[in-house]
Amino acid sequence: MNLILLEESDFVSPDLVRLSDRRKQHISEVHRAEPGEELKVGKVNGMLGTGRVVEQQEAFVDLQVELSQQPPAPLPVTLLLALPRPKMLKRILQGVASLGVKKIYLINSYRVEKSFWGSPWLQPEKLREQLLLGLEQARDTVLPEIQLCQRFKPFVEDELPQICAGSISVVAHPGGGESQLLSPGQVTTLAVGPEGGFINYEVEKLRECGFQVCDLGERILRVETAVPVLLSRLMLR
Amino acid sequence: MNLILLEESDFVSPDLVRLSDRRKQHISEVHRAEPGEELKVGKVNGMLGTGRVVEQQEAFVDLQVELSQQPPAPLPVTLLLALPRPKMLKRILQGVASLGVKKIYLINSYRVEKSFWGSPWLQPEKLREQLLLGLEQARDTVLPEIQLCQRFKPFVEDELPQICAGSISVVAHPGGGESQLLSPGQVTTLAVGPEGGFINYEVEKLRECGFQVCDLGERILRVETAVPVLLSRLMLR
Repeated sequence: MNLILLEESDFVSPDLVRLSDRRKQHISEVHRAEPGEELKVGKVNGMLGTGRVVEQQEAFVDLQVELSQQPPAPLPVTLLLALPRPKMLKRILQGVASLGVKKIYLINSYRVEKSFWGSPWLQPEKLREQLLLGLEQARDTVLPEIQLCQRFKPFVEDELPQICAGSISVVAHPGGGESQLLSPGQVTTLAVGPEGGFINYEVEKLRECGFQVCDLGERILRVETAVPVLLSRLMLR
Repeated sequence: MNLILLEESDFVSPDLVRLSDRRKQHISEVHRAEPGEELKVGKVNGMLGTGRVVEQQEAFVDLQVELSQQPPAPLPVTLLLALPRPKMLKRILQGVASLGVKKIYLINSYRVEKSFWGSPWLQPEKLREQLLLGLEQARDTVLPEIQLCQRFKPFVEDELPQICAGSISVVAHPGGGESQLLSPGQVTTLAVGPEGGFINYEVEKLRECGFQVCDLGERILRVETAVPVLLSRLMLR
């Protein structure tokens, strides 16, 4: 937790928050903060700043908050991700949130196991929890938006054209050939398949929608490795 | 398992292997391979090729092997990694092996918990297991070498100068400033700290050894995310 993220409901007055959950615990046990100490805080979807400990009790801690800095710039990317196995999903969401991705579409694909769509980890509050962990890690405040798209064809035909309009659209696919499609700062729509990859039909549907195919050389990478490798290429140096 | 990795001891004759472990299980249950079918195989530290199923029994499968292709090119990097938490270590090793890293030094740092050095996951055969999983994933055969360096100062003073000679030496450290130090194909020695980062003393010791400090912008990333992001920048496009 490199940042204490504050929710609207934490504010008891315009510049005072009272925390009593895992954030209070973190402040007491990891920071071992004493009254007067300043901690890095941020408001969800708002600014960054400092929180000065003004009172600390067994059950809560009060912080006087001053918010004055912008959060770090987002990555200019919309990420389409074939729904990963639930165990992986959590880690991947934390990772992409920490990297500054703000728009995520979890999509279906032939090789996504149907059961994944029934996972309790897809409930909005569970998804939000993982994203907050990623933001806390990276000292960001802006919550990514996630859409679940359980039907591939209608998504690609009816929604995707608007989503990827005005961006470079790239599907990462082993054997794709092109590998220079991703460049720093370029507005990009990036599609990443499931373990085992998109099937040819899916790659063709994406091509019809204007996607170019890119690969990462001969190596076949797990999704959790491929995603940061790909996103790295969009980061400003 | 995108590749069946063969050990010297699997060979019953120069071009025939008999498999009876998890690889046999994978061939039977995932590939559902029938006699005559060809599978992608590779010999540890050797060539890639095909294995044709010639006999399949309950207890074993025999493959006729032809090895004729070179494995993918390695990444030109020596990775110094502050020893991660054991749970993370496994995933990180699989990831870096899949990305083509061939030299790994697991080093100590002030913020590495002492108990990590006692983990059973540091036993050579356990480390090897994780590396093989990464190679199988990426269709590579060349096993990375891992050294454990439990004392930071003697390592940096006595061993590191030879290790990093002739390479660009970079330590990833938040707030480092420079971020263009990593470039495709460049022979690099890359040091990555623990969660929480190297302490200033350690960064200074690395600087004395010729390391330059690089960061990845304002965001603080977990080691498991930072490593593929950094290595991505060394990959040929």
